[in-house]
Amino acid sequence: ETSSKLLDGKLIAKKIRDEIAGEIDGIKESTGIVPGLAVILVGSRKDSQTYVRNKKKACEDVGIASYEANLAEDCSEEEVMKHISNFNNNPSVHGILVQLPLPRHMNEEKILNAVSIEKDVDGFHPLNIGRLAMQGREPLFVPCTPKGCMELLHRYEIEIKGKRAVVIGRSNIVGMPAALLLQRANATVTMVHSYTKNPEEITKQADIVISAAGVANLVRGSWLKPGAVVVDVGINPVDDTGSARGYRLVGDVCFEEACKVASAITPVPGGVGPMTIAMLLSNTLSSAKRLHELR
Amino acid sequence: ETSSKLLDGKLIAKKIRDEIAGEIDGIKESTGIVPGLAVILVGSRKDSQTYVRNKKKACEDVGIASYEANLAEDCSEEEVMKHISNFNNNPSVHGILVQLPLPRHMNEEKILNAVSIEKDVDGFHPLNIGRLAMQGREPLFVPCTPKGCMELLHRYEIEIKGKRAVVIGRSNIVGMPAALLLQRANATVTMVHSYTKNPEEITKQADIVISAAGVANLVRGSWLKPGAVVVDVGINPVDDTGSARGYRLVGDVCFEEACKVASAITPVPGGVGPMTIAMLLSNTLSSAKRLHELR
Ligand SMILES: NC(=O)C1=CN([C@@H]2O[C@H](COP(=O)(O)OP(=O)(O)OC[C@H]3O[C@@H](n4cnc5c(N)ncnc54)[C@H](OP(=O)(O)O)[C@@H]3O)[C@@H](O)[C@H]2O)C=CC1
Ligand SMILES: NC(=O)C1=CN([C@@H]2O[C@H](COP(=O)(O)OP(=O)(O)OC[C@H]3O[C@@H](n4cnc5c(N)ncnc54)[C@H](OP(=O)(O)O)[C@@H]3O)[C@@H](O)[C@H]2O)C=CC1
Repeated sequence: ETSSKLLDGKLIAKKIRDEIAGEIDGIKESTGIVPGLAVILVGSRKDSQTYVRNKKKACEDVGIASYEANLAEDCSEEEVMKHISNFNNNPSVHGILVQLPLPRHMNEEKILNAVSIEKDVDGFHPLNIGRLAMQGREPLFVPCTPKGCMELLHRYEIEIKGKRAVVIGRSNIVGMPAALLLQRANATVTMVHSYTKNPEEITKQADIVISAAGVANLVRGSWLKPGAVVVDVGINPVDDTGSARGYRLVGDVCFEEACKVASAITPVPGGVGPMTIAMLLSNTLSSAKRLHELR
Repeated sequence: ETSSKLLDGKLIAKKIRDEIAGEIDGIKESTGIVPGLAVILVGSRKDSQTYVRNKKKACEDVGIASYEANLAEDCSEEEVMKHISNFNNNPSVHGILVQLPLPRHMNEEKILNAVSIEKDVDGFHPLNIGRLAMQGREPLFVPCTPKGCMELLHRYEIEIKGKRAVVIGRSNIVGMPAALLLQRANATVTMVHSYTKNPEEITKQADIVISAAGVANLVRGSWLKPGAVVVDVGINPVDDTGSARGYRLVGDVCFEEACKVASAITPVPGGVGPMTIAMLLSNTLSSAKRLHELR
């Protein structure tokens, strides 16, 4: 039987989107300003197209105007840079998002650095990450996925200060900023990655586990301390002949086992995924407010 | 009896300074270029004056030209900014260092951000820290004290990859960048700070301990795993009636106890301190080479 509380990202994300929609309504009414998000998609990866479509739909629902640049797989870096520059200079655009991954022939660092730091709603600019890492500094934007993890913990009133936390994975967009955020909230953080020996033993010491390794069923029930809180960021396809697509999506955590040990756990799907999109909307709204000096 | 190997920072720093002096000689001969370091000192704190004097002396010894701006405690932020701007624009200056702490009435963030990222030999600019935190990015400069810790480990051929590491302290200038550097070298890193519960138990799991808490005798022998490597960054005054000054300087680690448990340990003084200055010289030389596109 299940003993874990479900950290219902879908439900919380819906609440947050409603809050955002309400705030945007108010701003439109009193100032006429409409927050705007621009998305740059290069190439025609199916998964990227789905992500972009979902983001556009989410914008629409809360009253954020969305702008799109769809570029061919074989377009030049310069072309991408030109679109970024246009969006940087467009006062109706408050957030700019470059859908990753970019085609191999492009320099991701160069392209991401071109996004104006004031519109970097993904929070991937090194200046933002530096501020996130530093005491006494504030990033303009916090990367959406780790921000979504933290927001979920906050909404469920899970204490972080003084707790042991383990983050599995250290990517620039999820693991590393998640570790920095937990540490800012005064958890004692250990970062686990592919060179870590005994990840099971280390993870078992944690009161809070955030897993973003991209490996299905990596975290078993035996990896968890009884009563731990588990946030599963992973989205991993596994074969499933019973499904029409031939696969289904699972997290990094073996849910059936973990839910018997953890005190609280996010489902996949319906956990961190919806929170990520809600945070993108939240970052776009904050950006519009900052750029227009509202409140 | 002592069983630890001594990680002799004084000796290694001397070697590094000799290497740097040799390289600078060569550069002067072949190009006429003289690397230059500018130091800005505000106020008249005794300890800061000592640090600045030591840095100038170290520059002199290896052939780096040093420039100094000594400003009164009650000077304005603008005045400091003006000096930074002059040094930024001075092509003979390749590194700029603002001695911390600044007087309370000054905005440290604003002043440090004014130092050209290309001359930020302290590596404190958030853009540098961001790059240090990110996979696939390279900082222009690595902060001197943590860089000195890593260099000491490298010169003694201490393996880092796959090891458990604990960093005690998470300041912007020591603890946090030290944790990022260990993680870049593929250690599994836990950051311990003042909210950490059971720091002893956590530290005892580490193969490598870097302590930068600023608390004398914090780390006892019982905190260490037998065979651990200990890098003691702390420089803490303790009363000593036997000394002419009435105090002496000790590290964070109780040396008498630790040296019986650790496989290797830095002394205080003569450990990380001299390495820090050597790394400042090294960063200044690299900067001169980069700005003049040498090699
Ligand atoms: N819910 C959401 O909204 C989002 C979900 N995701 C999902 O999160 C997961 C991670 O994404 P992302 O961060 O981009 O992935 P990356 O592939 O960029 O990073 C994976 C990280 O996990 C580490 N890792 C890989 N295998 C292991 C292992 N066996 N044990 C320990 N650590 C391991 C890697 O270590 P090393 O650095 O040593 O290689 C790396 O740091 C994916 O499943 C992705 O689909 C991603 C973004 C948003
Ligand atoms: N050898 C050298 O060249 C240098 C030596 N130093 C020395 O290194 C030491 C640290 O310097 P600095 O980083 O600037 O100091 P800070 O005071 O800025 O930072 C101290 C850090 O240690 C943590 N800390 C304090 N007390 C404890 C405790 N009891 N247990 C666990 N963590 C604790 C603090 O945690 P929290 O964040 O929660 O407050 C903080 O993160 C000092 O002794 C300093 O003199 C510094 C620079 C160069």
